Amino acid sequence: MKSILDDIRNSIDIIDNKILDLVNKRFELIKKIGLLKFKYNIILYDKNREKKIIKNKILNNINNNISNNFIYNLFKIFFFESYKIQLKIINNKKSIKSNKNIVIIGGTGKIGKIFFNILDKKGYNVFSINSKNWDCFNINKADLIIISVPISKFKFIFDKVITICKEDCILVDVLSNKSCNIKYAKEKYNGPILSIHPMFGPKINNFIKKKILYINIKFKDKYIWFIDLLKEVGFILYEIDSVVEHDNYMKYIQSLRYLFFLLYSNILLKSNLNINKIIKYSPFNNEILIYLFFNFCSQNIDLYLEIINSNFCNNFDIINNLINDLMFLKLNININNKNLINKYSFLDNLNNLSYIKKINNNVNKLFNLFSILK
Amino acid sequence: MKSILDDIRNSIDIIDNKILDLVNKRFELIKKIGLLKFKYNIILYDKNREKKIIKNKILNNINNNISNNFIYNLFKIFFFESYKIQLKIINNKKSIKSNKNIVIIGGTGKIGKIFFNILDKKGYNVFSINSKNWDCFNINKADLIIISVPISKFKFIFDKVITICKEDCILVDVLSNKSCNIKYAKEKYNGPILSIHPMFGPKINNFIKKKILYINIKFKDKYIWFIDLLKEVGFILYEIDSVVEHDNYMKYIQSLRYLFFLLYSNILLKSNLNINKIIKYSPFNNEILIYLFFNFCSQNIDLYLEIINSNFCNNFDIINNLINDLMFLKLNININNKNLINKYSFLDNLNNLSYIKKINNNVNKLFNLFSILK
Repeated sequence: MKSILDDIRNSIDIIDNKILDLVNKRFELIKKIGLLKFKYNIILYDKNREKKIIKNKILNNINNNISNNFIYNLFKIFFFESYKIQLKIINNKKSIKSNKNIVIIGGTGKIGKIFFNILDKKGYNVFSINSKNWDCFNINKADLIIISVPISKFKFIFDKVITICKEDCILVDVLSNKSCNIKYAKEKYNGPILSIHPMFGPKINNFIKKKILYINIKFKDKYIWFIDLLKEVGFILYEIDSVVEHDNYMKYIQSLRYLFFLLYSNILLKSNLNINKIIKYSPFNNEILIYLFFNFCSQNIDLYLEIINSNFCNNFDIINNLINDLMFLKLNININNKNLINKYSFLDNLNNLSYIKKINNNVNKLFNLFSILK
Repeated sequence: MKSILDDIRNSIDIIDNKILDLVNKRFELIKKIGLLKFKYNIILYDKNREKKIIKNKILNNINNNISNNFIYNLFKIFFFESYKIQLKIINNKKSIKSNKNIVIIGGTGKIGKIFFNILDKKGYNVFSINSKNWDCFNINKADLIIISVPISKFKFIFDKVITICKEDCILVDVLSNKSCNIKYAKEKYNGPILSIHPMFGPKINNFIKKKILYINIKFKDKYIWFIDLLKEVGFILYEIDSVVEHDNYMKYIQSLRYLFFLLYSNILLKSNLNINKIIKYSPFNNEILIYLFFNFCSQNIDLYLEIINSNFCNNFDIINNLINDLMFLKLNININNKNLINKYSFLDNLNNLSYIKKINNNVNKLFNLFSILK
């Protein structure tokens, strides 16, 4: 039996090598397409084209042993790798659009460094400045200045910058909470201002499909090249209408999540449970939740508190709601669940909304991929 | 240019068909291995073998255009699909080990139905019973009875069952919270008792790598065949030492998560934000969190409240801690962050622990897969 098994396994190995050989040829052609796309300025990532092709591959699947699900997964990883390969080709071309000077204040910070590397690779003249090596000469020469400093230091740095920089220098902030600082900046400075918010942590190893939010503050036409440049390296950019809208969403997207994970960390610590056992005994969704929690733990606590503070210090609505809800739960849990069921009955309704179906589709895909990963 | 691009794309299509043809042959051989494994009773899923092979494939990668990451992803989906194919073959063989009679009380419930289908497919005589069609005849004939009823009804049903069933009938519970009911069951019944806890929701479409926790209550040797059967259909089974340990972990794995998502749902609803925009503006980790939240919303609220209630109604520690933490945050946020930083400074330490590195490795894999999925 052992020898039959080994024979079959050897045959599989031979097939695997043939497959990899074909994949290698496939990616060679993908490179050629990348060069064409670069030459004729064609968009690299076309989500709808990807969807259409995968749909067709599934429709035309004539192989008895291959499930539609496998086709989907296979071409998803083909497309992802192809996109990565083409991005690399285009970015290696060092497509400098001009010899612009760029300064990053706070460029030795984690997010500052990422921007430094991107712009440096692209071939711009990039200078990294922090409070200890303040550099008036390069600030004065700069065509674009990224101010990547803590929220509490922004106004101070901004005031220093605008007395030195050229009057048409583009100023870019990466603030997590924008309203009060950007209002100030808009009033004080007459040149172009762009407000961006990178939606990724400092540990990312590629920029593919990572998001950057941006808000047009003043003179968009002056810095549209910078937005295009960010798209070119793989980021997806979403424009938000106003800093108020931005801050309102971030209150829930960032601060609320940070708050939950802080509370969670404290409870987990007090529980004295073994974290490996928690993961082992957890269903997939809780396992993923713990991975997200540890991803949260890998950043600096000061940063989280600054963001929580900036969103919650003048408005205790969310914190008060949480306290009230917990009090309500405590009061009702021993009497009966009826009050609680009524309070949360909207959850049943939620599930009937049309967009929930689309979201649940994504949940299934996520769990499916998670099974593969494990 | 258009025609050159089309030519290359046609060549890629031809390569894709060749690849799929080879994959089809690969899976044909995988089927053969499945039959051999069935015949000689060899384990289907061997995690270490999988790891070793993928490592070798990466080491032997001689193709310039193929990244190690691609090899990893490709063989992960090969292995997953192979396992699925082999499972299907083996389970279609209807390997009945005896003509045992099995009764599922609450078999029309979501989890009950899943067990009904598994056992029915395997070829056992399965009978589904609920309170409306109580069936003494089949309960009396049963070799194994799964009691899949709400926590609050367990004792009542259990008492009824043990007056009717054979004295060596195996009783299996699927309770989410076990301590008090299982202590009762153990005292009252002299036959074999197995306690299991399925770690998956009712919507799963395959059992591969999904977890079932189990605790040996009485006479393990009588029901070891049932545990083996669950492994055979793809589940991963983890034994937990005691019901107390089980309940303690579930308090954090289930109840705490349910509690957080309930609080989250209430806040999200009050915010009046557009859920599509929240997802659009979210970094990957928050996007995944929202998917988990909607996965939570897709189940019945009564079930969650029953589990929260069973864990928290006699012990308000966690709820009190949450309230205290929120109060502390509220008090300190306006003064300064120092107190808060000290309180949460352990987060910085957490990150230095050795197991965090392994977990962060999984986080990276998760985000990588999420990029592919999107």
